[in-house]
Amino acid sequence: MSAKQDDVLNARLSRVRVVLVSTSHPGNIGAVARAMKNMGLTQLVLVNPAEFPSGEARARASGANDILEQAQVVSSMESAVAGCAVVLGASARLRSIPWPSLDPRAAADRVLEVVESADAALVFGRENNGLSNDELDRCNYLVHIPANPDYSSLNIAAATQVLVYELRMSLLEQTGRRDNRFHSDQPRATADELERLYEHLQQTLTELDFLKPSAPRQIMRRLRRLFGRAELDRMEINILRGILSAVQSRSRGEKTEESER
Amino acid sequence: MSAKQDDVLNARLSRVRVVLVSTSHPGNIGAVARAMKNMGLTQLVLVNPAEFPSGEARARASGANDILEQAQVVSSMESAVAGCAVVLGASARLRSIPWPSLDPRAAADRVLEVVESADAALVFGRENNGLSNDELDRCNYLVHIPANPDYSSLNIAAATQVLVYELRMSLLEQTGRRDNRFHSDQPRATADELERLYEHLQQTLTELDFLKPSAPRQIMRRLRRLFGRAELDRMEINILRGILSAVQSRSRGEKTEESER
Repeated sequence: MSAKQDDVLNARLSRVRVVLVSTSHPGNIGAVARAMKNMGLTQLVLVNPAEFPSGEARARASGANDILEQAQVVSSMESAVAGCAVVLGASARLRSIPWPSLDPRAAADRVLEVVESADAALVFGRENNGLSNDELDRCNYLVHIPANPDYSSLNIAAATQVLVYELRMSLLEQTGRRDNRFHSDQPRATADELERLYEHLQQTLTELDFLKPSAPRQIMRRLRRLFGRAELDRMEINILRGILSAVQSRSRGEKTEESER
Repeated sequence: MSAKQDDVLNARLSRVRVVLVSTSHPGNIGAVARAMKNMGLTQLVLVNPAEFPSGEARARASGANDILEQAQVVSSMESAVAGCAVVLGASARLRSIPWPSLDPRAAADRVLEVVESADAALVFGRENNGLSNDELDRCNYLVHIPANPDYSSLNIAAATQVLVYELRMSLLEQTGRRDNRFHSDQPRATADELERLYEHLQQTLTELDFLKPSAPRQIMRRLRRLFGRAELDRMEINILRGILSAVQSRSRGEKTEESER
């Protein structure tokens, strides 16, 4: 990832506030700070935390102390979300009047539309009973993590982790930088290098009398499928061809010995 | 979601083992159990845990004690993953010989291909230094959560939460049950109901002399855009039309009063 692309990513993520309303356990505040920093977010806002600052929060933050030190402590959700163009409230509770609700992936997309030019907030309620209806009234959307219906209440730091992960993933996806294949320190083998490997393999297996020269097709097709799927790099090709050469030289040598006996 | 669909989902998720190798902090084991149960997983395998069973694990599991009670404790990664058709190792560490690495979404897809017919394992290493190279050798893939490069090490329960969330999301997506729009207790308004609302609105705004009858287009277009985006339900349409009727009757009454003066 280039430094410039990193800057864009960080600028977008720095516009997303995580707002924790009346958190009881300071350890959860620390765990949220860690989850935020892991995904590149910086703005933590605490509405009436039961205990803050706190040694337990620092312990659970585990290196994300800068997030805790910069955290804003405010006395109302209203001031926590002031200036935000979109406010999303996380809640597992089902309610009699349904709020418009998005899953975390759809919510991330909505947030990312906004943070090109404005701030957004993800709001998390109390550990025991979430956000009040008055607080939900200040949200544009409710975010619902699709959980096991028999056990749907996530720990607040776990819920934060899911939402900020989705934000980062969506940003990476949008900018074509989602990286879902493996890296190698070696260049990927090209189609012609693969062909030469297959030729070498077929020749070697024929010399071993493993393949019938008249009907090599089925086995070779299966071997092609295997190595094709493995997406070999150049060094792996060289290792495999080295092995084939060693097999050939031993096999030819042994044949000579046999014929000499 | 129907009960039958739930059964399929639960059957698939019950084939995914979460394997924790040499976990130091029992609290993390509890938090992992909670994350698993939240997403519908059941099989927890502990390789040489520092402390288990543990009160701290139970406290952090917060209702997911059944997962802890059913957890298997084994003495090697080999026995933990025995019988699994695919083994994914979570690791944040970069290594000199790169392992094939997937992001959590790609990893979830790979796991779901397997669990139609076999077990799969997600393996998490030690809190401080992850999985050893020998342990990674037993993995088909490494799963890498795309984190902030300056602070890339997630708490083990947070990492588990992300991976099991992706599993559940991918299953919901695959089966067409991803639910990314809001629910309402009311049926969604139909196109013709919306049109009648717009007619009513235009009529009322014209009566208020807010719209010029000669050129209502621009304002009406903006209002259509707003209500179109809001995806109204039938009750909302009724409320809005009730408001319009109240405005009309007041406006007509006042006009009458004015003309009577």
